[in-house]
Amino acid sequence: MKIPPGHPRAESLHIREKLIEQCKKGVVTAAGLVAHGRGEAFDYLLGEKTTKPALKAIEAAAAALSLAEKPVVSVNGNVAALGAEDIVKLSHAVGAKIEVNLFYRSSIRERTIQELLKKAGAREVLGVGKDASARIPELGSERRRVDPDGIFVADVVLVPLEDGDRSEALVKMGKKVIAIDLNPLSRTAQKASITIVDNIIRTLPRLVELAEELRNDKKKCRMILTNFHNRKNLAESIRLINNRLAKLAKEKKCVTLEGEMLEL
Amino acid sequence: MKIPPGHPRAESLHIREKLIEQCKKGVVTAAGLVAHGRGEAFDYLLGEKTTKPALKAIEAAAAALSLAEKPVVSVNGNVAALGAEDIVKLSHAVGAKIEVNLFYRSSIRERTIQELLKKAGAREVLGVGKDASARIPELGSERRRVDPDGIFVADVVLVPLEDGDRSEALVKMGKKVIAIDLNPLSRTAQKASITIVDNIIRTLPRLVELAEELRNDKKKCRMILTNFHNRKNLAESIRLINNRLAKLAKEKKCVTLEGEMLEL
Repeated sequence: MKIPPGHPRAESLHIREKLIEQCKKGVVTAAGLVAHGRGEAFDYLLGEKTTKPALKAIEAAAAALSLAEKPVVSVNGNVAALGAEDIVKLSHAVGAKIEVNLFYRSSIRERTIQELLKKAGAREVLGVGKDASARIPELGSERRRVDPDGIFVADVVLVPLEDGDRSEALVKMGKKVIAIDLNPLSRTAQKASITIVDNIIRTLPRLVELAEELRNDKKKCRMILTNFHNRKNLAESIRLINNRLAKLAKEKKCVTLEGEMLEL
Repeated sequence: MKIPPGHPRAESLHIREKLIEQCKKGVVTAAGLVAHGRGEAFDYLLGEKTTKPALKAIEAAAAALSLAEKPVVSVNGNVAALGAEDIVKLSHAVGAKIEVNLFYRSSIRERTIQELLKKAGAREVLGVGKDASARIPELGSERRRVDPDGIFVADVVLVPLEDGDRSEALVKMGKKVIAIDLNPLSRTAQKASITIVDNIIRTLPRLVELAEELRNDKKKCRMILTNFHNRKNLAESIRLINNRLAKLAKEKKCVTLEGEMLEL
């Protein structure tokens, strides 16, 4: 699909095309495409920009990752497709390990994603094949498999686009969970320690930037975390969506998600 | 994926699985899966039930189809995957023609969808191959192709899950356009003559029922249409979403779209 460069929703359409391409390569699953669509809808309700509460949460996430002793970034198909380079940069900035963590596991998918991450500059990729030999308690089947040197022993885990069961299980294991989720009402969003309600396309570069800024200032990191209240911040995101919907309805403007011109 | 029968979101998960299956068969496109995900998000904001304004719009749609001289139901991949049987029943109830109308046209896709509709009981399926020889003005490329015996000469067109450009072009051609769209702010929703903000899975059976009830009562049909105001009705749907969001945020309940247990 050709997207005209001046198209007001060009960014969103390019992201969609990228995912569809990676679906053909086996990185993204069909269910991953549906999940992306849900994200698109919430992003559109948020105005497709990083909001103030999202920025606050990104700052808290950068602080938590900088203070962490064993930080791990969990990567699934959609994350690899949309943010491999930024994930690698982030892992370098905060000394985090990268672990492949899939809802639909298959050894070929694991290895395809591992390769994609290595191409993006990752030196080490955990959670592939026999390495994913540890188990998260209380989860069924393939979804509980984690790397004993990665998520299993991590103190802080960044889970962009994670499912709720797993996020909750990680919290129960005593880990600080940082979620990136466009749906502020999802279980992942509600159960995480730090919830970034934003598109990972926008979040990851900012997170890298802030992590590089903060990593040598432990005192500032601790202050940021003391002043951050996840529940309050999440409620703020929901309020923003509400206000935007009310405004759109009042102005009788129409917006669209289907790859057409925006009339706002 | 196995879905436990008692799962609170089993219905939504079954629908998703159906679409993914039809994607493998070439009926649904990758972009169609993403679009479905957007629908899921809005459906969830609506509470995954047919709301009062949706019911009003379905009644108006049944009346308009019953009064139509040349009604046509436009079918794309997602519609064929989710509602082939109901589309056929509706076409029998109101004497409507069925036309395949695709954003991503290919002759093999057209024919796969035609076959699916015929298996569901359709006697005639328009818009396939050379039959789609007429053009909608102002639209580019393959998207403007329509059947000269179908949409091109129709007075009322039902477009479930249509894109905004085409809906608008049909309205400009003087047709009454009935849209089924879960996003009340989409261009299709905003431009259509009658907008049903609902999941087609729930809408179609009700629409068939009401059409069968109303088709012999022209007077009642005219009265229903006189009393129906699309803009007012649409605003009501947006208000419902807003109220639900506000309530969820206030109660701090968490809901989920990822195939997990609902905690509401």
